[in-house]
Amino acid sequence: MKSDIPVTSLQRLPVYLNYLKTLTSDGYISSGAIARALGMGEVLVRKDLAYTSAQGRTRVGYSCGELIAALEDYLGCNDKKKAVIIGAGELGKALLSYGGFLNYGIEIVAAFDSDSAKVGTYVGGKPIFDAKNAKEKIGELNARLAVLCVPAREAQAVADTLVDCGVMKILNFAPVLLKVKDGAIVRNIDVAASLAILSSMI
Amino acid sequence: MKSDIPVTSLQRLPVYLNYLKTLTSDGYISSGAIARALGMGEVLVRKDLAYTSAQGRTRVGYSCGELIAALEDYLGCNDKKKAVIIGAGELGKALLSYGGFLNYGIEIVAAFDSDSAKVGTYVGGKPIFDAKNAKEKIGELNARLAVLCVPAREAQAVADTLVDCGVMKILNFAPVLLKVKDGAIVRNIDVAASLAILSSMI
Repeated sequence: MKSDIPVTSLQRLPVYLNYLKTLTSDGYISSGAIARALGMGEVLVRKDLAYTSAQGRTRVGYSCGELIAALEDYLGCNDKKKAVIIGAGELGKALLSYGGFLNYGIEIVAAFDSDSAKVGTYVGGKPIFDAKNAKEKIGELNARLAVLCVPAREAQAVADTLVDCGVMKILNFAPVLLKVKDGAIVRNIDVAASLAILSSMI
Repeated sequence: MKSDIPVTSLQRLPVYLNYLKTLTSDGYISSGAIARALGMGEVLVRKDLAYTSAQGRTRVGYSCGELIAALEDYLGCNDKKKAVIIGAGELGKALLSYGGFLNYGIEIVAAFDSDSAKVGTYVGGKPIFDAKNAKEKIGELNARLAVLCVPAREAQAVADTLVDCGVMKILNFAPVLLKVKDGAIVRNIDVAASLAILSSMI
Protein backbone atom coordinates (compact mmCIF):
# COMPACT_ATOMS: atom_id res chain seq x y z
CA MET A 1 0.00 0.00 0.00
CA LYS A 2 2.79 2.41 0.89
CA SER A 3 4.07 2.48 -2.64
CA ASP A 4 0.74 4.03 -3.74
CA ILE A 5 0.90 7.06 -1.51
CA PRO A 6 1.99 10.30 -3.20
CA VAL A 7 5.07 11.82 -1.57
CA THR A 8 3.08 15.01 -0.91
CA SER A 9 0.57 13.00 1.16
CA LEU A 10 3.31 11.10 2.94
CA GLN A 11 4.94 14.41 3.87
CA ARG A 12 1.77 15.59 5.56
CA LEU A 13 1.36 12.52 7.78
CA PRO A 14 3.92 13.70 10.40
CA VAL A 15 2.12 17.06 10.47
CA TYR A 16 -1.15 15.34 11.41
CA LEU A 17 0.68 13.19 13.92
CA ASN A 18 2.38 16.15 15.60
CA TYR A 19 -0.89 18.03 15.75
CA LEU A 20 -2.85 15.12 17.22
CA LYS A 21 -0.17 14.63 19.87
CA THR A 22 -0.72 18.20 21.09
CA LEU A 23 -4.40 17.52 21.82
CA THR A 24 -5.06 16.86 25.46
CA SER A 25 -8.45 15.22 25.01
CA ASP A 26 -8.49 11.59 23.96
CA GLY A 27 -11.91 11.72 22.34
CA TYR A 28 -12.90 11.88 18.69
CA ILE A 29 -11.87 14.37 16.07
CA SER A 30 -13.35 14.99 12.64
CA SER A 31 -11.36 15.47 9.45
CA GLY A 32 -12.98 18.92 9.29
CA ALA A 33 -11.60 19.88 12.69
CA ILE A 34 -8.12 18.67 11.71
CA ALA A 35 -8.35 20.56 8.42
CA ARG A 36 -9.37 23.80 10.15
CA ALA A 37 -6.64 23.50 12.78
CA LEU A 38 -3.96 22.97 10.13
CA GLY A 39 -5.35 25.36 7.52
CA MET A 40 -5.84 22.59 4.95
CA GLY A 41 -8.76 21.38 2.89
CA GLU A 42 -10.99 18.75 4.47
CA VAL A 43 -11.08 16.51 1.40
CA LEU A 44 -7.28 16.51 1.32
CA VAL A 45 -7.06 15.53 4.99
CA ARG A 46 -9.57 12.71 4.50
CA LYS A 47 -7.69 11.43 1.45
CA ASP A 48 -4.34 11.52 3.25
CA LEU A 49 -5.67 9.71 6.31
CA ALA A 50 -7.29 7.07 4.10
CA TYR A 51 -3.78 5.78 3.31
CA THR A 52 -3.48 4.71 6.94
CA SER A 53 -5.54 2.02 8.63
CA ALA A 54 -7.55 4.62 10.60
CA GLN A 55 -11.29 4.35 10.16
CA GLY A 56 -13.34 7.53 10.57
CA ARG A 57 -16.95 7.16 11.69
CA THR A 58 -19.75 9.22 10.15
CA ARG A 59 -20.68 12.27 12.25
CA VAL A 60 -18.16 11.23 14.93
CA GLY A 61 -14.81 11.27 13.22
CA TYR A 62 -11.65 9.46 14.22
CA SER A 63 -10.71 8.26 17.65
CA CYS A 64 -7.65 10.39 18.44
CA GLY A 65 -5.83 7.46 20.00
CA GLU A 66 -6.55 5.16 17.06
CA LEU A 67 -5.58 7.81 14.55
CA ILE A 68 -2.27 8.49 16.31
CA ALA A 69 -1.59 4.73 16.40
CA ALA A 70 -2.47 4.36 12.70
CA LEU A 71 -0.19 7.26 11.71
CA GLU A 72 2.64 5.93 13.87
CA ASP A 73 2.17 2.52 12.36
CA TYR A 74 2.15 3.88 8.81
CA LEU A 75 5.25 5.98 9.43
CA GLY A 76 7.03 2.99 10.92
CA CYS A 77 7.47 4.62 14.33
CA ASN A 78 7.22 1.22 15.97
CA ASP A 79 9.82 -0.40 13.73
CA LYS A 80 13.30 0.18 15.05
CA LYS A 81 15.61 1.53 12.36
CA LYS A 82 19.26 2.44 12.60
CA ALA A 83 20.76 5.52 11.02
CA VAL A 84 24.26 6.94 10.79
CA ILE A 85 25.41 10.49 10.40
CA ILE A 86 28.20 11.21 7.95
CA GLY A 87 30.18 14.30 8.87
CA ALA A 88 30.53 15.28 12.52
CA GLY A 89 30.80 19.01 11.99
CA GLU A 90 28.50 21.39 13.84
CA LEU A 91 25.36 20.14 12.11
CA GLY A 92 26.30 16.48 12.43
CA LYS A 93 26.99 16.95 16.12
CA ALA A 94 23.70 18.79 16.60
CA LEU A 95 21.85 15.86 15.04
CA LEU A 96 23.79 13.34 17.17
CA SER A 97 22.41 15.08 20.25
CA TYR A 98 18.85 15.42 18.95
CA GLY A 99 16.33 13.11 20.57
CA GLY A 100 13.46 13.68 18.13
CA PHE A 101 14.43 10.78 15.84
CA LEU A 102 13.30 8.26 18.46
CA ASN A 103 9.69 9.44 18.03
CA TYR A 104 9.86 7.79 14.62
CA GLY A 105 11.65 4.66 15.77
CA ILE A 106 14.93 5.91 14.35
CA GLU A 107 18.07 5.36 16.38
CA ILE A 108 21.15 7.34 15.40
CA VAL A 109 23.85 4.81 16.19
CA ALA A 110 27.09 6.52 15.15
CA ALA A 111 28.73 9.24 13.11
CA PHE A 112 31.68 9.14 10.74
CA ASP A 113 34.29 11.81 10.17
CA SER A 114 37.76 12.02 8.65
CA ASP A 115 39.08 14.45 11.28
CA SER A 116 41.39 12.46 13.55
CA ALA A 117 40.66 14.86 16.43
CA LYS A 118 37.01 13.78 16.35
CA VAL A 119 37.48 10.07 15.68
CA GLY A 120 37.13 8.06 18.89
CA THR A 121 35.13 10.75 20.70
CA TYR A 122 31.44 10.58 21.64
CA VAL A 123 28.69 13.13 21.07
CA GLY A 124 25.28 12.62 22.61
CA GLY A 125 26.56 9.22 23.73
CA LYS A 126 27.17 8.18 20.11
CA PRO A 127 30.64 7.23 18.84
CA ILE A 128 32.38 9.03 16.00
CA PHE A 129 34.20 6.54 13.81
CA ASP A 130 36.86 7.08 11.19
CA ALA A 131 35.29 7.74 7.79
CA LYS A 132 37.90 5.37 6.31
CA ASN A 133 36.18 2.47 8.07
CA ALA A 134 32.65 3.52 7.10
CA LYS A 135 32.00 0.58 4.77
CA GLU A 136 32.91 -2.06 7.31
CA LYS A 137 31.35 -0.31 10.31
CA ILE A 138 28.04 0.46 8.60
CA GLY A 139 27.74 -3.22 7.76
CA GLU A 140 28.45 -4.17 11.37
CA LEU A 141 25.97 -1.59 12.67
CA ASN A 142 23.33 -2.73 10.18
CA ALA A 143 22.30 0.87 9.46
CA ARG A 144 19.99 1.39 6.51
CA LEU A 145 19.53 5.17 6.73
CA ALA A 146 22.12 7.93 6.59
CA VAL A 147 22.15 11.65 7.13
CA LEU A 148 24.75 13.46 5.05
CA CYS A 149 26.30 16.44 6.81
CA VAL A 150 29.49 16.75 4.78
CA PRO A 151 30.59 19.70 2.63
CA ALA A 152 29.04 19.86 -0.84
CA ARG A 153 32.28 18.87 -2.62
CA GLU A 154 32.46 15.58 -0.69
CA ALA A 155 28.78 14.66 -0.80
CA GLN A 156 28.69 12.66 -4.06
CA ALA A 157 31.64 10.42 -3.14
CA VAL A 158 30.13 9.76 0.30
CA ALA A 159 26.74 8.99 -1.23
CA ASP A 160 28.41 6.49 -3.59
CA THR A 161 30.08 4.74 -0.64
CA LEU A 162 26.81 4.63 1.29
CA VAL A 163 24.88 3.08 -1.58
CA ASP A 164 27.71 0.55 -2.00
CA CYS A 165 27.18 -0.35 1.67
CA GLY A 166 23.48 -0.92 1.08
CA VAL A 167 22.35 2.34 2.65
CA MET A 168 19.69 3.15 0.09
CA LYS A 169 18.01 6.07 1.86
CA ILE A 170 20.00 9.24 2.32
CA LEU A 171 18.91 12.52 3.86
CA ASN A 172 21.24 15.08 2.34
CA PHE A 173 22.00 18.50 3.85
CA ALA A 174 24.67 19.38 1.26
CA PRO A 175 23.38 21.82 -1.36
CA VAL A 176 24.14 19.54 -4.29
CA LEU A 177 22.09 17.19 -6.39
CA LEU A 178 23.31 13.66 -5.74
CA LYS A 179 23.15 11.01 -8.41
CA VAL A 180 22.40 7.57 -7.04
CA LYS A 181 21.55 4.32 -8.77
CA ASP A 182 18.00 3.06 -9.15
CA GLY A 183 16.58 1.85 -5.88
CA ALA A 184 18.41 4.41 -3.78
CA ILE A 185 16.47 7.48 -2.63
CA VAL A 186 17.85 10.87 -1.64
CA ARG A 187 15.84 13.55 0.14
CA ASN A 188 17.38 16.99 0.38
CA ILE A 189 17.20 19.59 3.12
CA ASP A 190 18.81 22.84 2.03
CA VAL A 191 18.49 25.18 5.00
CA ALA A 192 19.88 28.25 3.26
CA ALA A 193 17.65 27.74 0.23
CA SER A 194 14.65 27.25 2.52
CA LEU A 195 15.31 30.59 4.16
CA ALA A 196 15.79 32.23 0.75
CA ILE A 197 12.50 30.73 -0.49
CA LEU A 198 10.77 32.00 2.64
CA SER A 199 12.27 35.42 2.06
CA SER A 200 10.97 35.40 -1.53
CA MET A 201 7.42 34.46 -0.49
CA ILE A 202 4.85 37.24 -0.39
CA MET B 1 5.24 38.79 -10.37
CA LYS B 2 6.60 36.88 -7.40
CA SER B 3 3.19 36.56 -5.81
CA ASP B 4 2.03 34.52 -8.81
CA ILE B 5 4.63 31.78 -8.51
CA PRO B 6 3.42 28.53 -6.93
CA VAL B 7 5.45 27.57 -3.86
CA THR B 8 6.34 24.27 -5.53
CA SER B 9 7.96 26.17 -8.43
CA LEU B 10 9.69 28.59 -6.08
CA GLN B 11 11.13 25.62 -4.18
CA ARG B 12 12.72 24.26 -7.33
CA LEU B 13 14.52 27.48 -8.28
CA PRO B 14 17.42 26.91 -5.83
CA VAL B 15 17.76 23.39 -7.25
CA TYR B 16 18.26 24.78 -10.76
CA LEU B 17 20.61 27.41 -9.40
CA ASN B 18 22.75 24.88 -7.53
CA TYR B 19 22.88 22.64 -10.58
CA LEU B 20 23.86 25.43 -12.97
CA LYS B 21 26.62 26.54 -10.61
CA THR B 22 28.20 23.08 -10.85
CA LEU B 23 28.58 23.39 -14.63
CA THR B 24 32.06 24.34 -15.68
CA SER B 25 31.15 25.51 -19.16
CA ASP B 26 29.67 28.97 -19.51
CA GLY B 27 27.85 28.26 -22.75
CA TYR B 28 24.19 27.58 -23.42
CA ILE B 29 21.97 24.96 -21.88
CA SER B 30 18.54 23.78 -22.97
CA SER B 31 15.57 23.21 -20.68
CA GLY B 32 15.70 19.60 -21.88
CA ALA B 33 19.30 19.16 -20.69
CA ILE B 34 18.44 20.69 -17.30
CA ALA B 35 15.39 18.44 -17.04
CA ARG B 36 17.42 15.31 -17.84
CA ALA B 37 20.18 16.22 -15.38
CA LEU B 38 17.69 16.78 -12.57
CA GLY B 39 15.29 13.96 -13.44
CA MET B 40 12.38 16.34 -14.02
CA GLY B 41 9.98 16.97 -16.88
CA GLU B 42 11.09 19.46 -19.50
CA VAL B 43 7.76 21.33 -19.57
CA LEU B 44 7.96 21.80 -15.80
CA VAL B 45 11.50 23.17 -16.03
CA ARG B 46 10.48 25.60 -18.77
CA LYS B 47 7.43 26.76 -16.79
CA ASP B 48 9.49 27.26 -13.63
CA LEU B 49 12.21 29.23 -15.41
CA ALA B 50 9.58 31.41 -17.11
CA TYR B 51 8.90 33.01 -13.71
CA THR B 52 12.39 34.50 -13.84
CA SER B 53 13.59 37.08 -16.34
CA ALA B 54 15.69 34.49 -18.21
CA GLN B 55 14.95 34.24 -21.92
CA GLY B 56 15.58 30.91 -23.60
CA ARG B 57 16.37 30.95 -27.33
CA THR B 58 14.88 28.42 -29.73
CA ARG B 59 17.25 25.53 -30.49
CA VAL B 60 19.98 27.16 -28.36
CA GLY B 61 18.55 27.35 -24.87
CA TYR B 62 19.55 29.60 -22.04
CA SER B 63 22.89 31.30 -21.55
CA CYS B 64 24.15 29.67 -18.35
CA GLY B 65 25.47 32.95 -17.01
CA GLU B 66 22.25 34.80 -17.73
CA LEU B 67 20.14 32.02 -16.26
CA ILE B 68 22.20 31.96 -13.06
CA ALA B 69 21.89 35.74 -12.81
CA ALA B 70 18.13 35.59 -13.41
CA LEU B 71 17.66 32.90 -10.74
CA GLU B 72 19.84 34.80 -8.27
CA ASP B 73 17.90 37.95 -8.98
CA TYR B 74 14.55 36.21 -8.54
CA LEU B 75 15.65 34.58 -5.30
CA GLY B 76 16.89 37.91 -3.99
CA CYS B 77 20.49 36.74 -3.68
CA ASN B 78 21.69 40.25 -4.45
CA ASP B 79 19.47 41.91 -1.85
CA LYS B 80 21.12 41.90 1.53
CA LYS B 81 18.77 40.55 4.21
CA LYS B 82 19.39 40.14 7.90
CA ALA B 83 18.29 37.10 9.87
CA VAL B 84 18.49 36.10 13.51
CA ILE B 85 18.61 32.67 15.09
CA ILE B 86 16.48 32.04 18.14
CA GLY B 87 17.89 29.33 20.36
CA ALA B 88 21.65 28.80 20.50
CA GLY B 89 21.59 25.08 21.25
CA GLU B 90 23.53 22.66 19.07
CA LEU B 91 21.44 23.33 15.96
CA GLY B 92 21.40 27.09 16.47
CA LYS B 93 25.16 27.12 16.87
CA ALA B 94 25.61 24.97 13.78
CA LEU B 95 23.59 27.47 11.75
CA LEU B 96 25.53 30.42 13.21
CA SER B 97 28.69 28.85 11.77
CA TYR B 98 27.17 27.96 8.40
CA GLY B 99 28.33 30.12 5.51
CA GLY B 100 25.75 28.95 2.95
CA PHE B 101 23.23 31.66 3.78
CA LEU B 102 25.43 34.31 2.15
CA ASN B 103 24.90 32.66 -1.25
CA TYR B 104 21.33 33.93 -0.98
CA GLY B 105 22.23 37.37 0.35
CA ILE B 106 21.21 36.37 3.86
CA GLU B 107 23.39 37.52 6.73
CA ILE B 108 22.88 35.83 10.08
CA VAL B 109 23.55 38.75 12.41
CA ALA B 110 22.96 37.31 15.90
CA ALA B 111 21.38 34.60 17.99
CA PHE B 112 19.24 34.80 21.11
CA ASP B 113 19.18 32.43 24.04
CA SER B 114 17.95 32.48 27.62
CA ASP B 115 20.95 30.52 28.97
CA SER B 116 23.14 33.02 30.84
CA ALA B 117 26.21 30.87 30.14
CA LYS B 118 25.74 31.49 26.41
CA VAL B 119 24.68 35.14 26.53
CA GLY B 120 27.59 37.43 25.68
CA THR B 121 29.55 34.74 23.84
CA TYR B 122 30.19 34.56 20.10
CA VAL B 123 29.73 31.64 17.71
CA GLY B 124 30.96 31.91 14.14
CA GLY B 125 31.74 35.53 14.92
CA LYS B 126 28.09 36.25 15.74
CA PRO B 127 26.96 37.47 19.17
CA ILE B 128 24.49 35.58 21.33
CA PHE B 129 22.15 38.02 23.05
CA ASP B 130 19.82 37.50 25.97
CA ALA B 131 16.42 36.29 24.79
CA LYS B 132 14.85 38.79 27.23
CA ASN B 133 16.12 41.63 25.06
CA ALA B 134 15.03 40.06 21.77
CA LYS B 135 12.32 42.61 20.99
CA GLU B 136 14.58 45.62 21.40
CA LYS B 137 17.65 44.03 19.78
CA ILE B 138 15.81 42.68 16.73
CA GLY B 139 14.52 46.18 16.12
CA GLU B 140 18.04 47.62 16.37
CA LEU B 141 19.43 44.91 14.10
CA ASN B 142 16.64 45.44 11.59
CA ALA B 143 16.31 41.68 11.01
CA ARG B 144 13.28 40.57 9.04
CA LEU B 145 13.92 36.81 8.98
CA ALA B 146 14.30 34.40 11.87
CA VAL B 147 15.27 30.77 12.27
CA LEU B 148 13.61 29.08 15.22
CA CYS B 149 15.83 26.51 16.95
CA VAL B 150 14.08 26.37 20.31
CA PRO B 151 12.40 23.35 21.90
CA ALA B 152 8.87 22.61 20.70
CA ARG B 153 7.23 23.79 23.94
CA GLU B 154 8.75 27.27 23.58
CA ALA B 155 8.27 27.73 19.86
CA GLN B 156 4.80 29.33 19.82
CA ALA B 157 5.65 32.00 22.42
CA VAL B 158 8.87 32.84 20.56
CA ALA B 159 7.00 33.04 17.24
CA ASP B 160 4.48 35.44 18.83
CA THR B 161 7.32 37.68 20.01
CA LEU B 162 8.99 37.61 16.59
CA VAL B 163 5.83 38.60 14.77
CA ASP B 164 5.30 41.39 17.33
CA CYS B 165 8.79 42.63 16.39
CA GLY B 166 7.85 42.68 12.72
CA VAL B 167 9.73 39.49 11.82
CA MET B 168 7.09 38.09 9.49
CA LYS B 169 9.09 35.21 8.02
CA ILE B 170 10.07 32.37 10.28
CA LEU B 171 11.91 29.17 9.44
CA ASN B 172 10.87 26.74 12.16
CA PHE B 173 12.82 23.64 13.16
CA ALA B 174 10.57 22.80 16.13
CA PRO B 175 8.17 19.94 15.35
CA VAL B 176 5.04 21.96 16.11
CA LEU B 177 2.53 23.80 13.99
CA LEU B 178 2.86 27.50 14.75
CA LYS B 179 -0.13 29.79 14.53
CA VAL B 180 0.77 33.25 13.27
CA LYS B 181 -1.39 36.16 12.22
CA ASP B 182 -2.18 36.94 8.60
CA GLY B 183 0.81 38.34 6.79
CA ALA B 184 3.32 36.26 8.71
CA ILE B 185 4.69 33.13 7.03
CA VAL B 186 6.18 30.06 8.68
CA ARG B 187 8.13 27.35 6.83
CA ASN B 188 8.88 24.18 8.72
CA ILE B 189 11.89 21.90 8.60
CA ASP B 190 11.31 18.76 10.64
CA VAL B 191 14.52 16.75 10.32
CA ALA B 192 13.25 13.68 12.20
CA ALA B 193 10.03 13.61 10.19
CA SER B 194 12.03 13.98 6.97
CA LEU B 195 14.10 10.95 7.85
CA ALA B 196 10.95 9.01 8.79
CA ILE B 197 9.33 9.96 5.49
CA LEU B 198 12.44 8.83 3.64
CA SER B 199 12.38 5.59 5.56
CA SER B 200 8.73 5.05 4.57
CA MET B 201 9.39 5.66 0.88
CA ILE B 202 9.61 2.63 -1.37
